[in-house]
Amino acid sequence: MTSLSDVSVPSRVAGNDEGVGLDELALATRNHGMPLELMRHDLTPLGAHYLLTHFDIPYVDPRTFRLELGGAVDHPVSLTLDELRSRPTVTVPVTLECAGNGRARLHPRPVSQPWLHEAVGTMAWTGTPLGPLLREAGVAPDGIDVVFTGADHGIERGEEQDYARSLPLPMALGGDVLLAWAGNGADLPPQHGAPLRLVVPGWYGMASVKWLRRIEVVRTTFDGYQMRAYRLRQSPEEAGEALTRIAPRALIAPPGFPDFMSRTRVLRIGPHELEGRAWSGHGPVTAVDVTVDGGATWAPARLHPPVGPWAWRRWTLPWDVREPGRYVVSARAEDATGRAQPHQLTEAPWNRGGFANGALHRLDVVVPG
Amino acid sequence: MTSLSDVSVPSRVAGNDEGVGLDELALATRNHGMPLELMRHDLTPLGAHYLLTHFDIPYVDPRTFRLELGGAVDHPVSLTLDELRSRPTVTVPVTLECAGNGRARLHPRPVSQPWLHEAVGTMAWTGTPLGPLLREAGVAPDGIDVVFTGADHGIERGEEQDYARSLPLPMALGGDVLLAWAGNGADLPPQHGAPLRLVVPGWYGMASVKWLRRIEVVRTTFDGYQMRAYRLRQSPEEAGEALTRIAPRALIAPPGFPDFMSRTRVLRIGPHELEGRAWSGHGPVTAVDVTVDGGATWAPARLHPPVGPWAWRRWTLPWDVREPGRYVVSARAEDATGRAQPHQLTEAPWNRGGFANGALHRLDVVVPG
Repeated sequence: MTSLSDVSVPSRVAGNDEGVGLDELALATRNHGMPLELMRHDLTPLGAHYLLTHFDIPYVDPRTFRLELGGAVDHPVSLTLDELRSRPTVTVPVTLECAGNGRARLHPRPVSQPWLHEAVGTMAWTGTPLGPLLREAGVAPDGIDVVFTGADHGIERGEEQDYARSLPLPMALGGDVLLAWAGNGADLPPQHGAPLRLVVPGWYGMASVKWLRRIEVVRTTFDGYQMRAYRLRQSPEEAGEALTRIAPRALIAPPGFPDFMSRTRVLRIGPHELEGRAWSGHGPVTAVDVTVDGGATWAPARLHPPVGPWAWRRWTLPWDVREPGRYVVSARAEDATGRAQPHQLTEAPWNRGGFANGALHRLDVVVPG
Repeated sequence: MTSLSDVSVPSRVAGNDEGVGLDELALATRNHGMPLELMRHDLTPLGAHYLLTHFDIPYVDPRTFRLELGGAVDHPVSLTLDELRSRPTVTVPVTLECAGNGRARLHPRPVSQPWLHEAVGTMAWTGTPLGPLLREAGVAPDGIDVVFTGADHGIERGEEQDYARSLPLPMALGGDVLLAWAGNGADLPPQHGAPLRLVVPGWYGMASVKWLRRIEVVRTTFDGYQMRAYRLRQSPEEAGEALTRIAPRALIAPPGFPDFMSRTRVLRIGPHELEGRAWSGHGPVTAVDVTVDGGATWAPARLHPPVGPWAWRRWTLPWDVREPGRYVVSARAEDATGRAQPHQLTEAPWNRGGFANGALHRLDVVVPG
């Protein structure tokens, strides 16, 4: 007999010299990161924002769509898209990052979507705040979690499921969580959750449930698959710590021009300006330091105003290149809570999911002589 | 001294058991294919169309943009975007496919952007026909090729270049080549060539130069890097045959639901409908045959009307699944010129670039018992 366990195996880490497999590649060719040169834009152009779909992109007909809100509430409601759109509407720029960003550069490599650096993006999301909707429904005083379920269905590590994640009730009632139907002024594209997605500012992307169709207030701590999967663990047996807010990170918009295959950057002798973006889900970014000598020395970058309270900020630093040679460029971010990326390019805090690893972005730059 | 040859090495094929390298992965995480479930849409949603950028996505300011048309013409012209937009405008649905689609499944694997199956998409491009513009400029009677140069700059296999491709003059004067500023009714996103790209219906995507900024009529055969790169060769020394029109291909919209990591499909016992899309740049698709037993037997699918003369057509086939087990599903396309994909799933005509290989799409489907 054929069972689901034949098609879905436990998570694993790659062997020492194991190249990226066809399974990881199948994820990498359908999902995608943001080409880093697009960091020149405050808002990531539509379609270039990072994308991670666990299962398939479902087709949800916006004409018959209803959002169901129920569970431990006094008045369960069912809302059409037009009813949602007639509620108070806000537009908020939010930087979202995949919790597994940088995973493919870890040793050993956790086998999953093989991100290098680029699983990030900032969009201006338009929608209605979640909190008032929950309050109108009359949340039970003993409610604990709010569970958000998408229309996407599949198997992961042996468990068949609809994609579902929860937020603690106080967080869901807070002012910042959105039910969004538009991004950068356009209807959501199917791959970003059309017709409706949750947007949880400051949290890693797994919390912002796409193709949202059901919201349920529950009286217990929700322990669905995706809550157990997104945790920091050294071994599979550990309970681990739940992933929530985005750790600080800085990325560099690659200077000069690239080689097609190696992606090495080529820069001419002369004055240049390094630039990039930095963000944190814990608090405002307060410092970005930049090195062009592989971490031997660091210089503080100029910080530009944030695109919004939940969005990245631009940084710049003049770089007068006077000598031909090879340069290793990197940047590190620190936020107002004192959280910071490491100072060493070799330092990448490892965990089994490759989550929230904070590893530094390394760019190899060649200045021809 | 540091020179460009240090950062850019000749093309190569992977060793026997060599996994995908970080260089290939760096391309796979920034470029992307079309998630195949989106074939349910006639037009690929914005941002989900396949994307291959050789160098960086350049920023071209639409307010100061000018298209230069010169070379062997009587009246060189320089046109703003508004001037282009005021010309006769057409909207044409076109299926574009990367010439290297399927490359990563070949043995040995050519080391480049590692496509599996998904480097395709169909958009309705809006623009002005190229032919009349060339005629107004007064093409010299001894013109041979028309060279199209983009704003993207980099190094490939040791050669520094602006991305440039040519078309034979009669082809450029023909009615079907477009200068496009919009796709699916929206301004082009930066990654698809904003503000202006060439669209060459029926040809592999490398011909449709993005970020187009110069058109030059020349009296010789253009032999730029990208003309020499996109050729069918068994060894690097061969001159090889130039890639032009898209060979027939059929893909399957994956039925059932997937496992996250293996992407194996799970389907329940009962009646289903297989569906997908098929296209050819040589002529209309005239037949799609489908197998669910790995190629032992084939059944003809129903062909739906093409989305346009240069776009894919939908195909469907009912599938009544009665037994649990493992199924291997595939589809093959044939066009009006008699060109067709192979009948064997193991047959993938190899060439050093992995181009136009016509290999069949294989889907592993498990029906649990």
